[in-house]
Amino acid sequence: MKAMVCTSLGKPLELQDLPLPKPSNDGVVLRVEVCGVCHSDLFHARGHIKGTNTPFIPGHEIVGTIYEMGPDVQGFSVGERVIVYPVFTCGICKECVSGLEHLCDKWYPIGWKIEGRGIDGGFAEYVHVPNFRNILKVEGLNPEEVAPLACAGLTALHALYEAQVHPDDLLVLIGVGGLGHMALQLAKNLMNVTVVAVDIDEKKLSLASKLGADYVINSLKEDPVAFVRKVSGRGADAVIDFVNNSETSKIAFQMLGRGGRHVFVGVYGGVLSIPTAFMVGGSFRLIGSFMGTRRHLMELISLYKRGIVKPMVSSKFKLEEANEAFNKLERGEIEGRSILKP
Amino acid sequence: MKAMVCTSLGKPLELQDLPLPKPSNDGVVLRVEVCGVCHSDLFHARGHIKGTNTPFIPGHEIVGTIYEMGPDVQGFSVGERVIVYPVFTCGICKECVSGLEHLCDKWYPIGWKIEGRGIDGGFAEYVHVPNFRNILKVEGLNPEEVAPLACAGLTALHALYEAQVHPDDLLVLIGVGGLGHMALQLAKNLMNVTVVAVDIDEKKLSLASKLGADYVINSLKEDPVAFVRKVSGRGADAVIDFVNNSETSKIAFQMLGRGGRHVFVGVYGGVLSIPTAFMVGGSFRLIGSFMGTRRHLMELISLYKRGIVKPMVSSKFKLEEANEAFNKLERGEIEGRSILKP
Amino acid sequence: MKAMVCTSLGKPLELQDLPLPKPSNDGVVLRVEVCGVCHSDLFHARGHIKGTNTPFIPGHEIVGTIYEMGPDVQGFSVGERVIVYPVFTCGICKECVSGLEHLCDKWYPIGWKIEGRGIDGGFAEYVHVPNFRNILKVEGLNPEEVAPLACAGLTALHALYEAQVHPDDLLVLIGVGGLGHMALQLAKNLMNVTVVAVDIDEKKLSLASKLGADYVINSLKEDPVAFVRKVSGRGADAVIDFVNNSETSKIAFQMLGRGGRHVFVGVYGGVLSIPTAFMVGGSFRLIGSFMGTRRHLMELISLYKRGIVKPMVSSKFKLEEANEAFNKLERGEIEGRSILKP
Amino acid sequence: MKAMVCTSLGKPLELQDLPLPKPSNDGVVLRVEVCGVCHSDLFHARGHIKGTNTPFIPGHEIVGTIYEMGPDVQGFSVGERVIVYPVFTCGICKECVSGLEHLCDKWYPIGWKIEGRGIDGGFAEYVHVPNFRNILKVEGLNPEEVAPLACAGLTALHALYEAQVHPDDLLVLIGVGGLGHMALQLAKNLMNVTVVAVDIDEKKLSLASKLGADYVINSLKEDPVAFVRKVSGRGADAVIDFVNNSETSKIAFQMLGRGGRHVFVGVYGGVLSIPTAFMVGGSFRLIGSFMGTRRHLMELISLYKRGIVKPMVSSKFKLEEANEAFNKLERGEIEGRSILKP
Repeated sequence: MKAMVCTSLGKPLELQDLPLPKPSNDGVVLRVEVCGVCHSDLFHARGHIKGTNTPFIPGHEIVGTIYEMGPDVQGFSVGERVIVYPVFTCGICKECVSGLEHLCDKWYPIGWKIEGRGIDGGFAEYVHVPNFRNILKVEGLNPEEVAPLACAGLTALHALYEAQVHPDDLLVLIGVGGLGHMALQLAKNLMNVTVVAVDIDEKKLSLASKLGADYVINSLKEDPVAFVRKVSGRGADAVIDFVNNSETSKIAFQMLGRGGRHVFVGVYGGVLSIPTAFMVGGSFRLIGSFMGTRRHLMELISLYKRGIVKPMVSSKFKLEEANEAFNKLERGEIEGRSILKP
Repeated sequence: MKAMVCTSLGKPLELQDLPLPKPSNDGVVLRVEVCGVCHSDLFHARGHIKGTNTPFIPGHEIVGTIYEMGPDVQGFSVGERVIVYPVFTCGICKECVSGLEHLCDKWYPIGWKIEGRGIDGGFAEYVHVPNFRNILKVEGLNPEEVAPLACAGLTALHALYEAQVHPDDLLVLIGVGGLGHMALQLAKNLMNVTVVAVDIDEKKLSLASKLGADYVINSLKEDPVAFVRKVSGRGADAVIDFVNNSETSKIAFQMLGRGGRHVFVGVYGGVLSIPTAFMVGGSFRLIGSFMGTRRHLMELISLYKRGIVKPMVSSKFKLEEANEAFNKLERGEIEGRSILKP
Repeated sequence: MKAMVCTSLGKPLELQDLPLPKPSNDGVVLRVEVCGVCHSDLFHARGHIKGTNTPFIPGHEIVGTIYEMGPDVQGFSVGERVIVYPVFTCGICKECVSGLEHLCDKWYPIGWKIEGRGIDGGFAEYVHVPNFRNILKVEGLNPEEVAPLACAGLTALHALYEAQVHPDDLLVLIGVGGLGHMALQLAKNLMNVTVVAVDIDEKKLSLASKLGADYVINSLKEDPVAFVRKVSGRGADAVIDFVNNSETSKIAFQMLGRGGRHVFVGVYGGVLSIPTAFMVGGSFRLIGSFMGTRRHLMELISLYKRGIVKPMVSSKFKLEEANEAFNKLERGEIEGRSILKP
Repeated sequence: MKAMVCTSLGKPLELQDLPLPKPSNDGVVLRVEVCGVCHSDLFHARGHIKGTNTPFIPGHEIVGTIYEMGPDVQGFSVGERVIVYPVFTCGICKECVSGLEHLCDKWYPIGWKIEGRGIDGGFAEYVHVPNFRNILKVEGLNPEEVAPLACAGLTALHALYEAQVHPDDLLVLIGVGGLGHMALQLAKNLMNVTVVAVDIDEKKLSLASKLGADYVINSLKEDPVAFVRKVSGRGADAVIDFVNNSETSKIAFQMLGRGGRHVFVGVYGGVLSIPTAFMVGGSFRLIGSFMGTRRHLMELISLYKRGIVKPMVSSKFKLEEANEAFNKLERGEIEGRSILKP
């Protein structure tokens, strides 16, 4: 099978011809229909994440049809279209059995390898998913729009739940990219809150307005902290930071009202300094939100089916064009999400 | 009436003879039986908290008997023993009506004055409580032991709820003083978790052992982060920091397991630097916990009645000895809690 | 002032000229702009509810402007438009301080009197609200549409929260009248669930379709239990019964899937027989839902402002026409809600 | 291997010599050390439960050592002592992935067979557990005391969580048998509530007193409804009915305070008639509670280790004496729990 492989960190992916994988007892091999292109694919391939191992096949937003199944797989059949839940877990720890599988200490990713953990992903014609409990049926749905639900949508929905908003709350979303544009739809259509969208790119802010943001702020031109304090009269009830660097996290923290939730999602890196006594007086909550759970992915699929959320897929690439997809993403030229079609 | 008044920040309290207060329509005047002595009384009187106004009468852990009632007071009668819930709120904002009154933007304290808000407290023979909704009956209970429930106990119980522990969790308590020694009892007897108590004072650690701590660590002698990682195999499920300065908050943050809760309670001040991407990977939760609610105070009184928590009152002072009580507290010479008996 | 008074149960209301009320210290007198007409007004006036005392002025869905305020009222001014939260409570019991004020044992109603409790309502030119904590600002909003939020909307929103639905759940609503037509809007626009609406009146089912119901069932013509089992594949995740008689509650109970929630709202009366062991095997939850809280009313006002819920006011009456409004309601001739305009 | 087999409903179990089972890929074969004897074993073998299939080997409270493992088992090794979580589920439905696996529509039991579902249980020398995700380590613990945690303890803890008690609540437990005596310990030591224990057997009431019940009531001699209303002043905050027949469920329902929770656990059968409008006024919650989750079992093991709950094992039988164990249980002669030691 053809695959785009990261053989050396920071170098372009390499087109290789690899043997077709065979399913484990519990596993399935999928014929990849679509694979989304995510910033974390890029970050790992570029070598920005310490501990990344090569070689590996990127891609963790995978939709495909079942090509071959192991003997212990139950509830699926060959040819069915499925989406991959990209967090692989032990299934038996206290987090896993509580439905908080994204907190499993033994989790490993699909689409990158780090400190010896992880398996090959969806930048390939076929992919092996070692546990059928990690696939969900998406029969009859458009694979191009469904694929970005697997990570971008999942992470956005989880972050929104962590923000614990009520319908009369003011929510600020920082960053209206691949994740943010879905979070915005969910914030307006599912959570029904008032939304302030913050970005530094006018195109993304214009998309935000189209998707229903109540207010849009270009933080290069206007102080978002002052704006939020003025609009709300007391500060934000919740902020979700999809960028999450030193600057954005500072903005997020400073605009919180008493009891406000500050959800950390992006992985650009940086440092936030918090005055410890101020945390007490404000009763703030700072919440790291990582990916999401299978339950979130189920809900998302249901929400997508009914038009409540719809990933915007702006660019489509062939498998062989994966490096071009990476370059465009790196240059900030992707609105919404881009996908590969192997 | 006699009262110990803070007339000038950083100076000793002054004994004054003041007119007896008259109750408002909704208010009660209490004959103070006991008033606890809290670090925040000291901090305000010493001028450590920016914005403190003088003159004011300190004291917010107040138990007394009803001396006079306003005409609109319902459900109470003269002579009854009550405890004061020390957070005065608007009663109509979205936080107040949700039972999250400690988050009311318009709250004001009893026992200190800051930026024009606040009313005189319990370092006096009589105190005016302007709203009967802020008193709870404690008939038949020992006023000396009950008084510290009003703030120290309240704050400890609230912090424990914020820590969201399960019975098989590992909880770390930093600081076994006025608040910590009650949190420890509640952690063991109410939450039934495994507790690591951390302090730098051997007497307090010895008290912690007596109160049931599973492990005690003197952080001057042993690295608490390494210890917790070794005992738990994965880091703490939750940490409550009753000191909350730059050093302790760093320790707290570093010992968290994935999904771990870090509860900020102390008001010593300091700064914690958090790497933003690390927050995401660890799914950590940093939670500022301020005082507590009337509901918490009700539960505490019930728990105290049944011996599940018992404030340790190690020193008793006359009203006129308030300055001595402050000095001892400042020098770290108080085990558990000290009280004034006006 | 003019008022329509229930002087004798089962007899028409009587137009009387009564003295203008004076506000208590905490109270406000409102100039009534609009008062909704609810089934429970009718039931009490007709004598269907055991223990009802006469004379009383009906009406608990009240919007008006502040005419006079007591000296202790805070945060309001004369002339402001407000809505009345119709559940008056003690404010100090464990339910009240938890934000569960609808569970207060000492609660009393406005708009009817029962077993010695209750105060006069809004079928009058003026009404006395004895506690300013029971009014909420609705400045600038249409009083005709806002009034039905006070009870019909409040009860509907509370019931939906009790149903604890997830976005991919199937929810059945029984009865699309004054409460049901608002619940349906909230179910679709706020909860985003799939809704089956059940009624026996084709006009109401047609309204349900217009308001977005996914399926409508006339239970006189089709078996709703069989229909729900077929559509869902497993039974309803939740059912809210706005009728709640022996027939509808049986239907509701029988269509539950495992873990399903059955919310009791209507007060028509009847009896449901439940097999005790079947309750265990199915892990069903039967939940009585009474009115709602101030927090719910705040959220509703916010949702109404943004068009997420909009009470349908089909009939408007003058104060003197209250008996006609009652008669039409009794004959099932009111779609949505009717109102009085004193 | 030797096994006690139910070959014909209502007849004594038959001692048979059966082939040793072989593990599936994900499965383990256990050498049974101890198997608890539960009312549901008896009910199925006696033919009281419609749909029971023969032949089957009873027994679902199983502790044993791993004798042989399938090739895909992870995290366990031969010789380890484990307990079996007796609810086998699909692992992929929305309930399973939410940590609510006891609600899985496709669940099947170990220790009985019904309508074609179910597998052989622990009344045998060896037992096959087809999924390693259903075993938990209990190394170093006393297997005799641990076995009853698998069902009696699990069901008791789950029921207590469903009762949603606060520490100052009044909880009524009906039935102080195999489940009730553990629920009582958990109610006192874990939940810290005030407990009224109700039974008709003086020995069980005497055990209840010993285990810390605040009040014990023999419902043959005293009216428990009147008693609870008198003690609480308002009715029970929660009632858990471990008998759950027509009489006990009526008592439970009648003693509820407003907002009270009525948890259905026992499977004796019967019918409860509830007035539908009364449900609304009282805001009652009727909750069917079935078994529990793996998370509950983990917590229980932790609580047992620390002495917070301790099953009382009053009678021990050899495998061949299973019929005698059944007879004693049927005659109500077992205090706490009885076990088999194959």
